[in-house]
Amino acid sequence: MVVLVRPRNPLNIGAAARAMSNFGARQLRLVNPYAVAFREARSAVGASGLLKNAQEFNSVAEAVADCSLVVGTTAVRNRDLQHPLRRLNDQSGSAIRTALKSGRVALLFGSEKIGLTNEDFTHCHWLLNIPTHEHHISMNLGQAVAVCLFGLSPRVADEVSPQEAEPAASGEIEKITQGLYEALKISGYVKPGNDAVSEKKVRRLMLRFNLQAMDAKVLLGMVRQMLWKLRQAGKN
Amino acid sequence: MVVLVRPRNPLNIGAAARAMSNFGARQLRLVNPYAVAFREARSAVGASGLLKNAQEFNSVAEAVADCSLVVGTTAVRNRDLQHPLRRLNDQSGSAIRTALKSGRVALLFGSEKIGLTNEDFTHCHWLLNIPTHEHHISMNLGQAVAVCLFGLSPRVADEVSPQEAEPAASGEIEKITQGLYEALKISGYVKPGNDAVSEKKVRRLMLRFNLQAMDAKVLLGMVRQMLWKLRQAGKN
Repeated sequence: MVVLVRPRNPLNIGAAARAMSNFGARQLRLVNPYAVAFREARSAVGASGLLKNAQEFNSVAEAVADCSLVVGTTAVRNRDLQHPLRRLNDQSGSAIRTALKSGRVALLFGSEKIGLTNEDFTHCHWLLNIPTHEHHISMNLGQAVAVCLFGLSPRVADEVSPQEAEPAASGEIEKITQGLYEALKISGYVKPGNDAVSEKKVRRLMLRFNLQAMDAKVLLGMVRQMLWKLRQAGKN
Repeated sequence: MVVLVRPRNPLNIGAAARAMSNFGARQLRLVNPYAVAFREARSAVGASGLLKNAQEFNSVAEAVADCSLVVGTTAVRNRDLQHPLRRLNDQSGSAIRTALKSGRVALLFGSEKIGLTNEDFTHCHWLLNIPTHEHHISMNLGQAVAVCLFGLSPRVADEVSPQEAEPAASGEIEKITQGLYEALKISGYVKPGNDAVSEKKVRRLMLRFNLQAMDAKVLLGMVRQMLWKLRQAGKN
């Protein structure tokens, strides 16, 4: 679950809820939110059920009481050496997903201005840091929630790999090469006495295209049509 | 670089710029932004140099003319099978980082309402999809930019691994075990005739704590102090 500690901006509360929907997180809790902000976020057009069902608490201790793992997020990398600090990466993601199998996990985000305090940290098992540019470490709250939830999700492999498209067979590429070479000869592109070099040039060019089978078919059709036209023109 | 195509909301333009600063992206381009939105975003308090230097273009073709790789983002996973679709993962991140070594890479984001169009896609070498929950695929623009830029960054390993903290030596844990066991005996916790079982119980408990050297020292001090007090009490 996501726990927002002292959030001030209704847009950020809404954005956190939206990111949770995007990445399949279910429960939103707020600790001492700015009352006006929470009300506005809840009544906003399109506010999700997740936002309407968000629970409010008066302290971090109460908000995380039923959680077996509490992780605090921080932009700073060495504020508090009393806590183990992990980066947002596959290892921390895997640690959290493992913990989720046996209990509830709370991911704490501090207020927009100051983040989580050292007192908040004492409720955390460990801290999580998003690796950002060293001169711009402070993220927008809604964006930080989105990045964390994405970063903690399992990596998803490509379903349709670009490599899976069927590549053109060499024989097909050779047909294009021959057709194009012939067309270039008729067009006067190939200089007399230099035939062999130019044929190789065309073949290498075609190979560099990394043609897919479908595209090779289309290209061969184009080349043959041009070749036919060039030959017709030569006859007249 | 990030290219926002027809963005409508000044907050999203600002959020995109902020995420770019967080993740070290440098150049922001906009294609036909809603003029009022672009003006507002630029004049917002705290608008970054990156935002002030953002370039405006009248078409996607012009915006990506100097790029050697153009990647379009899409929430939909099978709208356009004419384009290779990759997921935001280590492989796509690595492909983009490789391309960045030899040329400019444009990452295109469509408008808040409809995203990128099929016409926009024709300018893209491939499409990138953020793996989201199947029922909530549509992300906020600013959050999508943040998640993409994070997802395309190289994974960062933990600098201070929680495992690197020095673990307590077995001898230290045994001292705690013995002290605590003694204290429990004096306290009447250990039942007569059941000594061996209880000592094992205490030792296993201490081992499950996975104590760090520093914590073991503190705990031993606590136990010894209690033991001293219990013995004193027994003398009186």
